[in-house]
Amino acid sequence: MKRDEILIQEIVKGLETAWNAGDSAAFCASFAADMDFIDVLGNHHQGCPVVERGHRRIFDTFYKGSKQQYAVEKIRFIRPEVAVAFLKARLISYLGVSIDEPNRDAHAGDAEREDWARPTLILEKKNDRWQVVAFQNTRVAEMRA
Amino acid sequence: MKRDEILIQEIVKGLETAWNAGDSAAFCASFAADMDFIDVLGNHHQGCPVVERGHRRIFDTFYKGSKQQYAVEKIRFIRPEVAVAFLKARLISYLGVSIDEPNRDAHAGDAEREDWARPTLILEKKNDRWQVVAFQNTRVAEMRA
Repeated sequence: MKRDEILIQEIVKGLETAWNAGDSAAFCASFAADMDFIDVLGNHHQGCPVVERGHRRIFDTFYKGSKQQYAVEKIRFIRPEVAVAFLKARLISYLGVSIDEPNRDAHAGDAEREDWARPTLILEKKNDRWQVVAFQNTRVAEMRA
Repeated sequence: MKRDEILIQEIVKGLETAWNAGDSAAFCASFAADMDFIDVLGNHHQGCPVVERGHRRIFDTFYKGSKQQYAVEKIRFIRPEVAVAFLKARLISYLGVSIDEPNRDAHAGDAEREDWARPTLILEKKNDRWQVVAFQNTRVAEMRA
């Protein structure tokens, strides 16, 4: 694997680790200050402070205790210093934890829920460091019988 | 507006016109041959032939007679010749037209359905012509009361 691919894989691993620690600041550590973020519900958030706050909210509420696994399916280099990373994400979360119950513990006998998604990262290398300038997530629809 | 923004707006208008004509070849006219396409159901399609065939199928079946409106919400230039266009899409389609009924006419008394989505285009300029190298769509979730 090329060095840049390894660096991008490390960014993805960092996102996963941050998610699983429920650490919104760490989740945004690789994001450009003015980044664009389209979440799985189709909302477009602009700028790190907004994206960090949004993740803090979901980590504290309905994604509390959730576990994210990212696999890099493909990296497309548009320039040596501009790349698109296509991920597949598996998220285990706990039913029963709602946004209205920030202090409720997850895991407490709650049923697990499994969701798949395809987050895509647009990355730019600046001063030898890759940054995420845009992130878009799309839920993988459940198969109908 | 800068010339490149106008050219990208024209590509978006071309996509809209092609969709509304149900013309899958025209829909793919601005796509790079090896493009990546993540559809609203989270499927990742690679390459124009696959993407064209997929659109032909939906234009002939459950999106038959549907009308797409795209608005460009933001264009982000990562390089002078690499851009990300964030769109908002409004799609009017007709309930009752299913994938199993390719020859059934839409409009025939069917109820309209309105869907919103946020398609994002990654574009690259080559030989003075912008091409879509990646396309990702995310449905805008309906608001809960």
